[in-house]
Amino acid sequence: MSLAVRRIAIIGMGLIGGSLGLAFKAARGGKIEITGIDTNELSLIRARQRGAADSVTADSKAGAAEADMVILCTPVLQAAALVKEIAPYLKPGTILTDTCSTKSYLIKEIAAVLPAGVSYVPGHPMAGREKSGIEAADSTLFCDKWYILIPPANSDAAAIEAVRRVVGWTGARITEMEAGRHDRCTALISHVPHIGAAALVNLLSYAEDKDSSIKLAGGGFRDTTRIASSNADMWADVCMTNAGPIADSLDKFSQIIGEVASAIRRGDRACVHGFFAAAQERRDELLQLEQAVTEQPLSNGR
Amino acid sequence: MSLAVRRIAIIGMGLIGGSLGLAFKAARGGKIEITGIDTNELSLIRARQRGAADSVTADSKAGAAEADMVILCTPVLQAAALVKEIAPYLKPGTILTDTCSTKSYLIKEIAAVLPAGVSYVPGHPMAGREKSGIEAADSTLFCDKWYILIPPANSDAAAIEAVRRVVGWTGARITEMEAGRHDRCTALISHVPHIGAAALVNLLSYAEDKDSSIKLAGGGFRDTTRIASSNADMWADVCMTNAGPIADSLDKFSQIIGEVASAIRRGDRACVHGFFAAAQERRDELLQLEQAVTEQPLSNGR
Repeated sequence: MSLAVRRIAIIGMGLIGGSLGLAFKAARGGKIEITGIDTNELSLIRARQRGAADSVTADSKAGAAEADMVILCTPVLQAAALVKEIAPYLKPGTILTDTCSTKSYLIKEIAAVLPAGVSYVPGHPMAGREKSGIEAADSTLFCDKWYILIPPANSDAAAIEAVRRVVGWTGARITEMEAGRHDRCTALISHVPHIGAAALVNLLSYAEDKDSSIKLAGGGFRDTTRIASSNADMWADVCMTNAGPIADSLDKFSQIIGEVASAIRRGDRACVHGFFAAAQERRDELLQLEQAVTEQPLSNGR
Repeated sequence: MSLAVRRIAIIGMGLIGGSLGLAFKAARGGKIEITGIDTNELSLIRARQRGAADSVTADSKAGAAEADMVILCTPVLQAAALVKEIAPYLKPGTILTDTCSTKSYLIKEIAAVLPAGVSYVPGHPMAGREKSGIEAADSTLFCDKWYILIPPANSDAAAIEAVRRVVGWTGARITEMEAGRHDRCTALISHVPHIGAAALVNLLSYAEDKDSSIKLAGGGFRDTTRIASSNADMWADVCMTNAGPIADSLDKFSQIIGEVASAIRRGDRACVHGFFAAAQERRDELLQLEQAVTEQPLSNGR
């Protein structure tokens, strides 16, 4: 049975929610109806002006009550709280999904409050920008990017199929992954690099030569710390809800940094050279593998 | 007195040396004569084919002997060794400069072997690319970038003036800085970020979920680790010759990472939020300040 999805409620009309709305409308036009939900009135006005939603409301319960599909696009702790609020108002058959960066925590929280007849299919688009908010939203944000679905073991196949179909409208590449693995992988490739970039910026602000350093901080520093300009609320939530994998990876990262510092102090050029050569070789390998994987036909894609 | 610079010897025809050659020839054409020097024969052939040098040789002594200005564009440890070799062959009045990333070490090494009548004006262009080698060379690499001169206290004013004039042909923005300050600043804005990027890549290669992580490693990871693909020899030398400032900044960096990991483990959202908010605010500030500084008329420029 194929579930029809005509009315979609997007909760959180920021960069991700707004971009989903724009992408859905670009692909489906009048065949779907999008309700944009946010507590920020200005975001709602702009979401409608930009065409990311057909109608808007600050009332998440009323907005979600009529939807065939509800997509949570808020920071993860807000998403968990919102589901508790809206759960009693969802009609049977509603499909719930989200775009949050950490999954094990949210799956556990939502399982505890989900009404019978409502399916939850967790999602995570691997796309973002330096800027946040509805003004930064872009209908092509997800094109050719990975969009991971993380369905728990007991998930409803028709609900997964429906989320795949809707996500497919964005032009994203869809894949599935188990929640624990998702959280460990994203800690490594997204959360820890993000914390590292923020730490580099904060390091600079402690420096005695701050002004000269700023003057010289050129393209390399700007690129390396680009992701340090993103939303603090979202990232604080990510850290709170994926604490174990992130803290473990930070420990390992700190250990690697400590080993390099020791090798530098004792003048061990061979060790330091090996560290850089390994990174160079591995990054070139990663880029090649990434390209090979990206060019493979997707076993789960459509 | 203005020193005429007609014959320039560039030692090391890689990304930086090759780009200098291309920029000089683009600006001055037949008014100058460039000798390209390298131990790699293929680099020499390509340097001449690409027009980065008028003549080439693998003999650094002979190549430098006839030059009005010698520019060392090798990794810093090689530069120190090379000066010892070529010093006896330099004619009186020759101006020596370099493009190495660390300065206190090199200034000390070169002062010990510099013949009477030869002036040394240390330099450091704040420009680079992910790729190295003569093929990556580009005549516009230095345009609008900072090019720092780090003249020791007893430097010859006419020699500084001559280096300024020659560097000016590249379109770079010229500034002066004291060696110790230069080394501390570059540790913060270039060396430590570089080591952090390499550590992130090496961290990924330890992961149990390596394949899935690679698959998902997207634009953010690529950007953050871009500088990890640069020349391992050059970076090992940088670490060996700027060990104190780099190791000190790495310790502080590691301490910041450790503090964030602790806050994450104890679930201290306010602390983690403060960390991200500070980074976001400071990075935005840095970019504004950088722009303001860049738009200022340069007191030392011409």
